[in-house]
Amino acid sequence: MALIVQKFGGTSVGDVERIRNVARRVVKTREQGHDVVVIVSAMGGETDGLVALARAMSSDPDPREYDVLVSTGEQKTIALLSMAIHGLGCSARSMTGAQLGMRTDSDHTRARILDIDAARVRATLDGGSVVVVAGFQGTDEAGNITTLGRGGSDTSAVAVAAALEADVCEIYTDVDGVFTADPHMVPTARKLARISYDEMLEMASLGAKVLQIRAVKFGKRYGVPIHVRSSFHEGEGTWVVQEEDVMERLVVSGVTYNRDEAKVTLFGVPDQPGVASRLFVPLSEAGVVVDVIVQNVSSQGHTDITFTCARGDLNRALPIVEKVRAELDAAGVTSDDSITKVSVVGLGMKDHAGVASRMFRVLSDEGINIQMINTSEIKISVVVGERYTELACRALHDAFGLADQDATEEAH
Amino acid sequence: MALIVQKFGGTSVGDVERIRNVARRVVKTREQGHDVVVIVSAMGGETDGLVALARAMSSDPDPREYDVLVSTGEQKTIALLSMAIHGLGCSARSMTGAQLGMRTDSDHTRARILDIDAARVRATLDGGSVVVVAGFQGTDEAGNITTLGRGGSDTSAVAVAAALEADVCEIYTDVDGVFTADPHMVPTARKLARISYDEMLEMASLGAKVLQIRAVKFGKRYGVPIHVRSSFHEGEGTWVVQEEDVMERLVVSGVTYNRDEAKVTLFGVPDQPGVASRLFVPLSEAGVVVDVIVQNVSSQGHTDITFTCARGDLNRALPIVEKVRAELDAAGVTSDDSITKVSVVGLGMKDHAGVASRMFRVLSDEGINIQMINTSEIKISVVVGERYTELACRALHDAFGLADQDATEEAH
Repeated sequence: MALIVQKFGGTSVGDVERIRNVARRVVKTREQGHDVVVIVSAMGGETDGLVALARAMSSDPDPREYDVLVSTGEQKTIALLSMAIHGLGCSARSMTGAQLGMRTDSDHTRARILDIDAARVRATLDGGSVVVVAGFQGTDEAGNITTLGRGGSDTSAVAVAAALEADVCEIYTDVDGVFTADPHMVPTARKLARISYDEMLEMASLGAKVLQIRAVKFGKRYGVPIHVRSSFHEGEGTWVVQEEDVMERLVVSGVTYNRDEAKVTLFGVPDQPGVASRLFVPLSEAGVVVDVIVQNVSSQGHTDITFTCARGDLNRALPIVEKVRAELDAAGVTSDDSITKVSVVGLGMKDHAGVASRMFRVLSDEGINIQMINTSEIKISVVVGERYTELACRALHDAFGLADQDATEEAH
Repeated sequence: MALIVQKFGGTSVGDVERIRNVARRVVKTREQGHDVVVIVSAMGGETDGLVALARAMSSDPDPREYDVLVSTGEQKTIALLSMAIHGLGCSARSMTGAQLGMRTDSDHTRARILDIDAARVRATLDGGSVVVVAGFQGTDEAGNITTLGRGGSDTSAVAVAAALEADVCEIYTDVDGVFTADPHMVPTARKLARISYDEMLEMASLGAKVLQIRAVKFGKRYGVPIHVRSSFHEGEGTWVVQEEDVMERLVVSGVTYNRDEAKVTLFGVPDQPGVASRLFVPLSEAGVVVDVIVQNVSSQGHTDITFTCARGDLNRALPIVEKVRAELDAAGVTSDDSITKVSVVGLGMKDHAGVASRMFRVLSDEGINIQMINTSEIKISVVVGERYTELACRALHDAFGLADQDATEEAH
């Protein structure tokens, strides 16, 4: 008998009928003899509706009250799912964040989890009930309701699994698992059986949106095995586990891309201390999230600084960069919002030299110009023209041997 | 500086604009230098929507989870109202039933209030904030969410006022106060400045639906002055207070009626011990709420038993009465669903003999036949044919000198 944590998102609990389906899945797991804790999000669209209500009331809603409001979404779902499980003849008890003892800091709308009172859940499980937990919410030291921010339900689930030392945290989603590339982009992409937390972190932050980054970090810190799987069928998905538990050690595990970026270059900047901070501090203060930064070597006392940011932030970033240009008497500013960041990710890179050079050669062979390069221990990213996105992903996927043989054969 | 509890119902907080209006009223009271605690219901229609969702999920929803679900309605309102008060530059903090420390028993969907942790509210008031409380909800000893049942928000408000020893509990409603009769029925009806708890209890239970019975009982037990007033203007409404605080001692304070009744008579019942319980125990078990019961004196070893019940319960009551008739070998059963119960209520009756006889003579003068009579210390009720409702109410209202002189003059 195992202790299994199951997390279902807003789409899976989008209406009464879907909640009944989730209940059947939960009861089936229970009938296999396992203890089950279910974490749910608000019904699809519910949170958006509540946020709209808050905006209608105030252009700048009080954060404490915002959390009181939006946390009702998950509370509705836990009640309905518990009723549905009851309806199938199985005992279930719902728990809000407060009832669970999900303690967070007081940073409303984006609180961090401090600890969970596992004893309360354990006692309810020992009483023979399924426990149905409201994701995304907690309370601070003073008992104020807090929320973890968007996507917080994944984090709630992994945190509960960690506190209970659960055997697995199952994240149910509308995809079959984590793929070597976006199947819509690369038809030969195949599902990975296992992937390490670190690889998953790079994949998630690079745009493979199956699992929230914070949840993966939590899983890594507490060693919680996460099973990302389909809510439509019972086949195995992808296990996100510790590095030593990844059996199939590929050099590269996946190819990802992010089209939601824009590039800004500040030319002819005097190469002196403090220049970078004069540029990036005001950008950060303006809420512009900067991704890749590249600074070339200095030439005749001047250098160029290039960075990427979210496309939606470009119009906010440009006036700031222009102001800094004038202050520094730099040569000029250019920007480009038709770029893509393409990355290869893999633990195997640590031990295999030559991944970068192979990547560059593959792109060169396809006639794709590399505009920026950025590397980490288990990831290499390049910025290329947006029109090369598909070509780059497919070529790299193929070159690093990630293709699903069956799919490849079918494709030929 | 006073401590004022204000309660606003579902219609008053029905949408964003109405919640803003409530916020203005609250802030105005605050600016007059008073401490304010606001109790709110769910937005109009919200609770019905949640109940429908529960019914869609299960024909017999688990009561614990039902409470978790419906309590989200008030939680939404407290967040939105607090935001609106903030928006007017005034500090406000919302409290759910759990945060308030509203302790109840565990009788889900109709819990009773046990106690309230007044210290938490006081500390927040002392911090300079308006406190916005979710009505209708609490938690039991084990921390489970409970609800007080329909109309529970009035009770929450009076209970909070009692716990805080508030100077007044203001109940905002869509009428101007408590009237000597239904103004739609009796044009000369006038607003009472003051009324005792006991009179209000008789008025409320007799169909003057401005204030929940449970709330009045609570007010009476703890001596909370209740001010029923209009949410549309700032004029004084009606104060519901202790008997000794009712200055204007009328013999009769009001005339009320209830058309939602039906009458059933069981004829020729053997007059022996246990007969009444054989009839009324199965009716009670079937959920039929019996109102007036009259049993005539015995004649030749047989008697007649007549009772009234809600019209909607008549079809459930009749087969039960017929079954009892057969068992007791009684003569027959008749029923009539076109009756009205008309009552006069007043503390003054205690000291004034002859109220009953005057009532009967007035009705007789109008040619109205009295079918049943029932009396209590401060109330006399008669059952008459439904078509006499208006005539009876107006004649009694006039005869007991309740008419508004101005209105009477206008009417002439």
